[in-house]
Amino acid sequence: MSILVVGTVALDSVETPFGTAHRLLGGSATYLALAARYFWPEVRLVAVVGRDFPEAYRQVLQQAGVDLEGLVVNAQEDTFAWGRRYHYDLNERDTLYTHLNALATFDPVLPAAYRDSQIVCLGNLDPHLQQRVLDQVEAPAFVICDTMNYWIEHTPEALRAVLRRVDCLVVNDAEARQLAAEPNLIRAARKIQAMGPRIVIIKKGEHGALLFFEEEIFSAPAYPLEDVFDPTGAGDTFAGAMAGFLATQQCFDEAALRQAVIYGSALASFVVERFGPERLLALTPEEIAQRVAAFRRLTMFPEVDLQTLALPGLNHAT
Amino acid sequence: MSILVVGTVALDSVETPFGTAHRLLGGSATYLALAARYFWPEVRLVAVVGRDFPEAYRQVLQQAGVDLEGLVVNAQEDTFAWGRRYHYDLNERDTLYTHLNALATFDPVLPAAYRDSQIVCLGNLDPHLQQRVLDQVEAPAFVICDTMNYWIEHTPEALRAVLRRVDCLVVNDAEARQLAAEPNLIRAARKIQAMGPRIVIIKKGEHGALLFFEEEIFSAPAYPLEDVFDPTGAGDTFAGAMAGFLATQQCFDEAALRQAVIYGSALASFVVERFGPERLLALTPEEIAQRVAAFRRLTMFPEVDLQTLALPGLNHAT
Repeated sequence: MSILVVGTVALDSVETPFGTAHRLLGGSATYLALAARYFWPEVRLVAVVGRDFPEAYRQVLQQAGVDLEGLVVNAQEDTFAWGRRYHYDLNERDTLYTHLNALATFDPVLPAAYRDSQIVCLGNLDPHLQQRVLDQVEAPAFVICDTMNYWIEHTPEALRAVLRRVDCLVVNDAEARQLAAEPNLIRAARKIQAMGPRIVIIKKGEHGALLFFEEEIFSAPAYPLEDVFDPTGAGDTFAGAMAGFLATQQCFDEAALRQAVIYGSALASFVVERFGPERLLALTPEEIAQRVAAFRRLTMFPEVDLQTLALPGLNHAT
Repeated sequence: MSILVVGTVALDSVETPFGTAHRLLGGSATYLALAARYFWPEVRLVAVVGRDFPEAYRQVLQQAGVDLEGLVVNAQEDTFAWGRRYHYDLNERDTLYTHLNALATFDPVLPAAYRDSQIVCLGNLDPHLQQRVLDQVEAPAFVICDTMNYWIEHTPEALRAVLRRVDCLVVNDAEARQLAAEPNLIRAARKIQAMGPRIVIIKKGEHGALLFFEEEIFSAPAYPLEDVFDPTGAGDTFAGAMAGFLATQQCFDEAALRQAVIYGSALASFVVERFGPERLLALTPEEIAQRVAAFRRLTMFPEVDLQTLALPGLNHAT
């Protein structure tokens, strides 16, 4: 089972109340791939960079075991660059600049060796490009897709066409409400499922994530972090780790999806501890296992002996 | 083990996008008592009403088995009355009016028979009155306390004095952030624990609740509701059900608190399905047990066979 990730490889600049970092390795495809490869060795990347993309960053991806045959270099343009400022509570953010550069003319072409990919991760991109990618994959077994407010507003038809071909949409709560035109998240998810994806995952930041698997709902907590250093990449790390985990299970049933959401949440909880993808470069299997165990402790409540509840107070009601 | 609830008994008017209801039986003590008595027969109420309090509402509380010896009637005043309008997404609300009436001069005096109460629920009230109540209880085993932004802003000293005598503070996320002057909820809870309560519960509405029990954290989901009809009383129902549940367990350890948070969440998820406390008047033990089982399905994820994860991708990191 091979994983294909498509998205951006970017140079990110981030200002947070804790510090500032410039031209970090970033982009949705970067985080998707660096998270997925923790679980599965065959991770193929399709993206474009420009003439200024540092060789050291290529090395980072290569040494992480990511297949870079699909990473195109546009020698006429610079790399997609993006600047963001996070406010004190980290839920609010301003975009300082977005220089599309090489991304403006990006047309994803899959190397021949990528066409048999089975798990496809469509990072946040123009839905026309997401469709182009799907057209080139022979027989995808599981398609995970991200999007954002810009495409919901500006290319709704193209987005709808993609959604009909997607197994699992991963969006944040504001995007889910906007896409479904519905403030209640449960109703919003049901409406999105009716658009195509039988699985919808709604990321709620510090409030965790909701998985809608056909009729069933799974509520995953957020790992309780006292210090979120840099939220960049958390959502793509979540989706990438899910994809990698699902590859190991060779299965996309409800149990595997519940587990995948926890592994996704665990890796996302690491990445926000440092600037950029730094924390994703040297995690150990033990650290991941411990974090997953912490998620279990966070949600576990013992069975109640119902005999202890057979009381007059309850019988009033019968 | 007997439960004492202190708070308001009110006549509530509520406008929601789904309808309008006037002069409903309401108030924190009402919801606390009606929820607690589902679990435990001895629920004692201390509150004041006025000359206009309907006899039918007294009957509702009495038939539910609530001890009303501590319900004072002020024949010179009307009952505390309160009007609220909820907006379309139900997270926003406007207070239309607050007529304190009999509540303005309320001085809670415990009947002699109430002084041996063991579980004490202090509903949202002036913290000076909450202190007066605690002064009259001989040997409280467990004190649960609610408060609100008004007291955090206007009577911070009195509130701090109450918190030093409280085992478990139950507040919403905005109140926790304000009380601790800290936007991060985990840090906020730790700061509040340092003020006295070894247990802090932060209610997050549609995002569930967080229990901070000494060093441990438990994250309870919200029950996924497609239709929240009237959010009034959900927080007090939560706290009242917790108190009743804990009485059945005769125990206040971490396991019991985790379970109590789930039972509190379950009863709160019922009360918002109708106007006022209507849904609390005829729940069956089976309905409660089914809702609790639904909370377990909502949070359950199977153990992962770690052998399936022993892959080259992970070994890159070691």
